[in-house]
Amino acid sequence: MPRTMIQTILARHGGDGDIGSIVEAQVDFGFANDITAPPAIEEFLRMGAKRVFDPARCAIVPDHFTPPKDIQSAEQLRICRDFAAEQGILFFEPGKCGVEHAFLPEEGYVLPGEIAVGADSHTCTMGALGTLGTGMGSTDLAAIWALGKTWFKVPPSIKVTLEGIPGPFVSGKDVILNIIGEIGVDGARYMALEFHGEGVKNLSLDSRFTMANMGIECGAKAALFVPDETVLEYARRNPKRPFEPAYPEAGAQYHRELTVQLQHLTPPGGVPQPALQRKARKGLREVKVHQVFIGSCTNGRLEDIRAAASVLQGRQLAPSVRGVLIPASRRVFSAAAKEGLLDVFIEAGFSICTPSCGPCLGGHLGILGKGEVCISTSNRNFTGRMGHRDSLVYLANPAVAAASGVTGRITDPADLD
Amino acid sequence: MPRTMIQTILARHGGDGDIGSIVEAQVDFGFANDITAPPAIEEFLRMGAKRVFDPARCAIVPDHFTPPKDIQSAEQLRICRDFAAEQGILFFEPGKCGVEHAFLPEEGYVLPGEIAVGADSHTCTMGALGTLGTGMGSTDLAAIWALGKTWFKVPPSIKVTLEGIPGPFVSGKDVILNIIGEIGVDGARYMALEFHGEGVKNLSLDSRFTMANMGIECGAKAALFVPDETVLEYARRNPKRPFEPAYPEAGAQYHRELTVQLQHLTPPGGVPQPALQRKARKGLREVKVHQVFIGSCTNGRLEDIRAAASVLQGRQLAPSVRGVLIPASRRVFSAAAKEGLLDVFIEAGFSICTPSCGPCLGGHLGILGKGEVCISTSNRNFTGRMGHRDSLVYLANPAVAAASGVTGRITDPADLD
Repeated sequence: MPRTMIQTILARHGGDGDIGSIVEAQVDFGFANDITAPPAIEEFLRMGAKRVFDPARCAIVPDHFTPPKDIQSAEQLRICRDFAAEQGILFFEPGKCGVEHAFLPEEGYVLPGEIAVGADSHTCTMGALGTLGTGMGSTDLAAIWALGKTWFKVPPSIKVTLEGIPGPFVSGKDVILNIIGEIGVDGARYMALEFHGEGVKNLSLDSRFTMANMGIECGAKAALFVPDETVLEYARRNPKRPFEPAYPEAGAQYHRELTVQLQHLTPPGGVPQPALQRKARKGLREVKVHQVFIGSCTNGRLEDIRAAASVLQGRQLAPSVRGVLIPASRRVFSAAAKEGLLDVFIEAGFSICTPSCGPCLGGHLGILGKGEVCISTSNRNFTGRMGHRDSLVYLANPAVAAASGVTGRITDPADLD
Repeated sequence: MPRTMIQTILARHGGDGDIGSIVEAQVDFGFANDITAPPAIEEFLRMGAKRVFDPARCAIVPDHFTPPKDIQSAEQLRICRDFAAEQGILFFEPGKCGVEHAFLPEEGYVLPGEIAVGADSHTCTMGALGTLGTGMGSTDLAAIWALGKTWFKVPPSIKVTLEGIPGPFVSGKDVILNIIGEIGVDGARYMALEFHGEGVKNLSLDSRFTMANMGIECGAKAALFVPDETVLEYARRNPKRPFEPAYPEAGAQYHRELTVQLQHLTPPGGVPQPALQRKARKGLREVKVHQVFIGSCTNGRLEDIRAAASVLQGRQLAPSVRGVLIPASRRVFSAAAKEGLLDVFIEAGFSICTPSCGPCLGGHLGILGKGEVCISTSNRNFTGRMGHRDSLVYLANPAVAAASGVTGRITDPADLD
């Protein structure tokens, strides 16, 4: 039986099996953050493990409450730092790394054809490189750190064929929001999304990271792009190991197939709660916003910052709006500084903070009070996720978020004067 | 009886009186921050006040927990925002202002010869402009907002004469740390410091802000520089009102006089607790540091960032050290971006965050865990101020702080290779 892309990757790691079967597979890279590492460390020690399977393939990337927002987060960080030093695993101080899902692929720690497991749900981001990236709990990660392998139930796949060229102000965020709108927030539950088609080359790698990142928002176990030359070039810049990309086999069977015509998409501005994702979008432009957040593992990359800056250039946030920009990694932050983009945001009245998850998960750096509305480039808008349970988050691409900050209402950048 | 500088200013505001007498004086500007404004608002309403005395002379500058670190700080901010809108007083969203004591003089809200009262102890910073700046509690500020005046007990003054030219890597921070070391942490309790002498012109205005800022660290009610052309030029850039500088009268009597030879000073790196300020400084270079903080109302201005950047250029933080840079105002942040200074810090491995007090008072953005040591350009190192009660803070100028980050130990920048 010809294999889907996820089956090819699993097979290569010792996990050959039919869809639905349970397999065991080697893991190439296992990582956690400042929130999920401490319980993984506790579990690692409790199971009697002595050493990690390979220190160069284990990492802790602190990004959630960094720089430490309080004594507890400083203590969490200390636990991570001490364990990393003891085991010789990879650890990066705040300011020297970035959001895990942006930083790790950028620095060549995660590579095409590999299996990367992170104790964070957005590990599916790695799929932009054709990596089987998936999130697991801290306990599973502890076992991976100890053993270098884990089990999978081989998931069915949904084949998504992308065609056409997206119009102005349309990016990967819009593509994935539209797909989630189409299949529903549980439409890919425990399945792999597999992206194909001529349209892929019309989406930048940053846009593909955004799309893979939000695979989990429709329940996907992984979200894999078939690697093209763009991916291979990126991965060859600074790989930490040799790698071999994987591809689906011709004739593989898919649970479902859908085609997206990129040229037909418009930037939507996702609506508040997942249950409402399919709600008609007219009326959105009446919505008043108090805060704009540009950043996160979803949309904190250079393309995102450029897109927002191109809208903000020579413009100001509305007086009633505060803006928060958080580049996703040190490399992005540095590039944005060198290109003069940071000053565009400062002049527009934005707060800019060092790479971290920031307010995305209600951590810090822009938490919402009662009744406040944020338009955000992040990935998720569950009730109360960014602060008070009576606050709301609308998801959008960076250009839409920036334009909305300028007017104080959800705004299509094409409508700005 | 000829008047000291503080007496001249008080007299001009209706508060003429001998030293030790109680006077009532008009206040030119009254402000609070996101922590001290909410109780001031509550008290304002409880005393039955309806309108502030003059909306253009009342301000709330949110800087302590901004961007909001949690729901409570978002709610505090909302209280400030609502009151400001209702009263028509000045209010600035996070990202659009800065640390109150840096932002307000920079934007011409506080001017030479005036009386500015802030609900924050470091309001004495304004003294660099020859302004009677002083901190009061939220209750006092509420009365000032209602009445436009307050009472003072006329303080005696200490005349500090500055002579000579400071050597390399010596700045205002070193001058004031040395003065506090000399007179003790209660050496100017309820007195005014009055800075005179030829040496003043050899200190930049940024250095003078640092010195006035730390007047409160030896108990001073105010710390006043006799205005020179540098000050007047600065104040004339964008004054929000006409102003008239004030000067001491010839023959005024001082409680104490001291002279500081600037050329003899070395950058000290203050020692942990105030009680230890006079401790011998040898041995300091053995101290290992975990964190470097460059910023705050004390040392977050452009000169400070330039000084640290000149040390960091082409260098990296030691692997075990994390660094936090927080420019003190939007104007400073923008200038640092335009000069390419931010990228020097990013490349060196620093976190950079939007203007706020950050970790200075244990707020957020770099809180210390148990046993951690920070070298900081801020003003105060009481037990537990920056986090865990078993953490320590050493005070230093920005060049010393940067050099210490590079080596991981308290380091004189002149000793770097």
